[in-house]
Amino acid sequence: MGRPPPRLLCCLFLSLSLAAAAHAATRHHEWEISYQFKSPDCVRKLAVTINGQTPGPTIRAVQGDTVVVRVKNSLLTENVAIHWHGIRQHGTPWADGTEGVTQCPILPGDVFTYTFVVDRPGTYMYHAHYGMQRSAGLNGLIVVSAKPGGPDAEPFGYDGEHSVLLNDWWHKSTYEQAAGLASVPMGWVGEPQSLLINGRGRFVNCSAMAATGGACNAAHPECATPVFAVVPGKTYRFRIASVTSLSALNFEIEGHEMTVVEADGHYVKPFVVKNLNIYSGETYSVLIKANQDPNRNYWLASNVVSRKPGTATGTAILSYYGGRSSPRRAPPTTPPTGPAWNDTMYRFNQSVATVAHPAHVEAPPPRSDRTILLLNTQNKIDGHIKWALNNVSFTLPHTPYLVAMKGGLLGAFDQRPPPETYAHRSYDIYAVQKNPNATSSDGLYRLEFGSVVDVVLQNSNMLDANKSETHPWHLHGHDFWVLGYGIGRFDPAVHPKTYNLKDPILKNTVAVHPYGWTALRFKADNPGVWAFHCHIESHFFMGMGIVFEEGVEQVAELPQEIMGCGKTKGH
Amino acid sequence: MGRPPPRLLCCLFLSLSLAAAAHAATRHHEWEISYQFKSPDCVRKLAVTINGQTPGPTIRAVQGDTVVVRVKNSLLTENVAIHWHGIRQHGTPWADGTEGVTQCPILPGDVFTYTFVVDRPGTYMYHAHYGMQRSAGLNGLIVVSAKPGGPDAEPFGYDGEHSVLLNDWWHKSTYEQAAGLASVPMGWVGEPQSLLINGRGRFVNCSAMAATGGACNAAHPECATPVFAVVPGKTYRFRIASVTSLSALNFEIEGHEMTVVEADGHYVKPFVVKNLNIYSGETYSVLIKANQDPNRNYWLASNVVSRKPGTATGTAILSYYGGRSSPRRAPPTTPPTGPAWNDTMYRFNQSVATVAHPAHVEAPPPRSDRTILLLNTQNKIDGHIKWALNNVSFTLPHTPYLVAMKGGLLGAFDQRPPPETYAHRSYDIYAVQKNPNATSSDGLYRLEFGSVVDVVLQNSNMLDANKSETHPWHLHGHDFWVLGYGIGRFDPAVHPKTYNLKDPILKNTVAVHPYGWTALRFKADNPGVWAFHCHIESHFFMGMGIVFEEGVEQVAELPQEIMGCGKTKGH
Repeated sequence: MGRPPPRLLCCLFLSLSLAAAAHAATRHHEWEISYQFKSPDCVRKLAVTINGQTPGPTIRAVQGDTVVVRVKNSLLTENVAIHWHGIRQHGTPWADGTEGVTQCPILPGDVFTYTFVVDRPGTYMYHAHYGMQRSAGLNGLIVVSAKPGGPDAEPFGYDGEHSVLLNDWWHKSTYEQAAGLASVPMGWVGEPQSLLINGRGRFVNCSAMAATGGACNAAHPECATPVFAVVPGKTYRFRIASVTSLSALNFEIEGHEMTVVEADGHYVKPFVVKNLNIYSGETYSVLIKANQDPNRNYWLASNVVSRKPGTATGTAILSYYGGRSSPRRAPPTTPPTGPAWNDTMYRFNQSVATVAHPAHVEAPPPRSDRTILLLNTQNKIDGHIKWALNNVSFTLPHTPYLVAMKGGLLGAFDQRPPPETYAHRSYDIYAVQKNPNATSSDGLYRLEFGSVVDVVLQNSNMLDANKSETHPWHLHGHDFWVLGYGIGRFDPAVHPKTYNLKDPILKNTVAVHPYGWTALRFKADNPGVWAFHCHIESHFFMGMGIVFEEGVEQVAELPQEIMGCGKTKGH
Repeated sequence: MGRPPPRLLCCLFLSLSLAAAAHAATRHHEWEISYQFKSPDCVRKLAVTINGQTPGPTIRAVQGDTVVVRVKNSLLTENVAIHWHGIRQHGTPWADGTEGVTQCPILPGDVFTYTFVVDRPGTYMYHAHYGMQRSAGLNGLIVVSAKPGGPDAEPFGYDGEHSVLLNDWWHKSTYEQAAGLASVPMGWVGEPQSLLINGRGRFVNCSAMAATGGACNAAHPECATPVFAVVPGKTYRFRIASVTSLSALNFEIEGHEMTVVEADGHYVKPFVVKNLNIYSGETYSVLIKANQDPNRNYWLASNVVSRKPGTATGTAILSYYGGRSSPRRAPPTTPPTGPAWNDTMYRFNQSVATVAHPAHVEAPPPRSDRTILLLNTQNKIDGHIKWALNNVSFTLPHTPYLVAMKGGLLGAFDQRPPPETYAHRSYDIYAVQKNPNATSSDGLYRLEFGSVVDVVLQNSNMLDANKSETHPWHLHGHDFWVLGYGIGRFDPAVHPKTYNLKDPILKNTVAVHPYGWTALRFKADNPGVWAFHCHIESHFFMGMGIVFEEGVEQVAELPQEIMGCGKTKGH
């Protein structure tokens, strides 16, 4: 799979410029993706693993490092692609790992090497970005440390750190889930069986399941409760990421207030919470002080919010070194159950409170060149339930946009751009849509390179009356400024005046609250093709996403390795 | 995915020569492969389907026709490849559908068109040839009629015909099955839950399963018992094919003797049986006379032989038109249970009885240019249980041999040929192997074009004492003469003298009986690369196969469509 000479030249330049960055290291990883039977919540299930593990290994690097991950696909008949969530891939848009957008999937037996620079410190994650594979277990954390003393060094101190990866988990396979979603009538997998913390949970009906011959073993080491140990009096940074397929979560460390200091790799103006709302695709860092009675343990608790919970609290243990409690002993209390699941304003307020740290404000451009107003609706197409933006339900093409656009492959996708807006003056976001029919398209939005783009995501009622959900939207290739949130219908004549242009946080994933809107701004300055979609696995599968292209003509020669499917075959 | 001009030229010639064949038609099929929830044995399970069905549609054609099947892969993340089992693919070796041998797999979203001539009349089948996908439901029948009055017209008459596709069925997914086989210790899925006739069966524990919340519905239309209707006094041809993953079967039509007239597309010297032993990959035609009491129904019964049965008899109904019994009424009897499962000689005798019809003898070449003696053993490699030939366990390369060899792609597979023989004088086939360690290889056998090759398959004891199974071996791209069978150790100095060179049957799949040997001969006259393997899905998965190359330099320019994986990427 040799690259042609021009490409070698390009890489040489890349290597030289990397070498120029003082102390930058290259972090090599060798990953083999395979099916393994795992018992994350004590129930044995086939999972997609990295080197036999789910979650996969945490990638640790220092700002400016180059990360090289050599991925060997050892699945039997199934392809794979891995997205480095939160890494902007400046200069390496082909390494974003988004099947259908930036690459063809990696075939069984094939090896694909992802090479990219982690240019910012922070807490990120990786996960499969192909079909619903993320839900099958292929996910993990990326932790990038700041250069000590550098301009991006943390504006806060701590004595130690822990990482917390939150997930939800089903016993049905992702194939069954996907086939159900695509059926008429739709087969819905329902609420998750368990919530996982660092890949471990505890199915509540384990003993009943085992009694009827089911494969649940409460003593399985793979579902042993995680323990987070702290030294009395010390301050800890907890890096928290959510890779859930469906659930919005609330995370709490019993008895320990949390000071929010980082969100999606950006420093936050510190604020204190009893517990943290976190949506799929988001990361946060919080500081906690180990200042409670060291002679007992405390719960870490993960609870479903925004949907009526049907899943038991996910738990782990906080234990004090030197205390009289055995580290694994269950705390003497009931695990925290979080806020009321339907207290939208509680979560809305946390969103609004999340602004940039005063010493790390990056001011947004004062105005945008283009505003795209996107109405999120649930729709029907030929009897199939779908999600749509401005009544267009997104489908991924099978020829990656990046190759199609860079290589001028005609007919690879719908050339008509999706609509820029909707009938925002008359649309009743609180009503069931009168005409729920939508169309499907793999058309994309082409952005002028260097332009400033505003996107307003407008939530609305679903196909059932009195129902609107939270959607966490994730943008590839960029961070965006979060300019404002609202509940109700966004009015372009009114609400932009309320935007926070002073200290908006930069993020890569943001919540759109029930019946609410979220306004964000970004600069189209990263040559490539970038997905922007709801991070709920089933929602993206059902069409809740769009794609942006910007400056594709500036992208360097594409590596051969990303091709091989659709119209790129033999290209 | 346009072909380059030279290829168009080649196709033009192909079309012209096809047109020259009088009355030859082109049969077009459009297939979409997708996951669907199906209930073949009343238990709801995700299946890989063709146009929503499992089995897929029967392909019907007349000898000399061209069959064109446009396959669209609509699986979400999984590739596919389809083998046309029994079709020799003269001039179209790239259409054999064998992943890793003749083509790269078809990616989700991609379309692959199989075009081939069915040059011989007979009963054939198709099925997935990728991973263990065949077990997931992708299979069906090919029925090629003889040209009336032509030299290949049937040497027997009949009034009507029925088709019977036999299968075995598990409730666990093929992913779980494959992951289990690849685990240490090996996880074995066990005996099938049901035996299917034309894709329908009846899980015996349906009501118990439903009572504990399981997805079994005995009234589901997809598991309604198949009914075969006959007119009293008429003679029927039953075309019978077995696509089982594991099971050797015995098929019986209660109260109706069967006259065997066809095997694997070749006419058999007629012989009468009470019931028919049929191995995975085999097809037979039998004639039955509808000469019984028309006022009751009769069972069609499929029973496991050669392994200790753990599965209930698969049943269907034979019903007489005009009789007093409702077609769907269960016969008043117990379904036939077949011969004793371990009566090897009963099955051996049927094998020996199957010889060519006197009017259709194709004499084999009197001697071979090369003899390959293959010892079939069960082995261990790094703790994994494998099957091996002469202590080499076969692994499929990820670059198809056909492309690698035709295109001179170096390093695509092991260049060392596998061993030609084993220590046949000293090896005790009745003992547990003293050294069960084997090696893995994707090396292949290169045959001199036009040479005559003998292969002797020698069965032996497995890793457990006193255990030897039946292996049905299937050769792609050829029919072979079945020269002889034996029980015990094959002696090259003795047994070739006993070969049947007078009227051996030509077949594409043949049984190797427990502790037995089977000798076959074929002419290496079909340019291409051809798999030869045990047709038990798990056995091939565990290494029980080899590959032949012959005259690859004579193969016409390869279609672009078969490439895109491994070293063929961008080729």
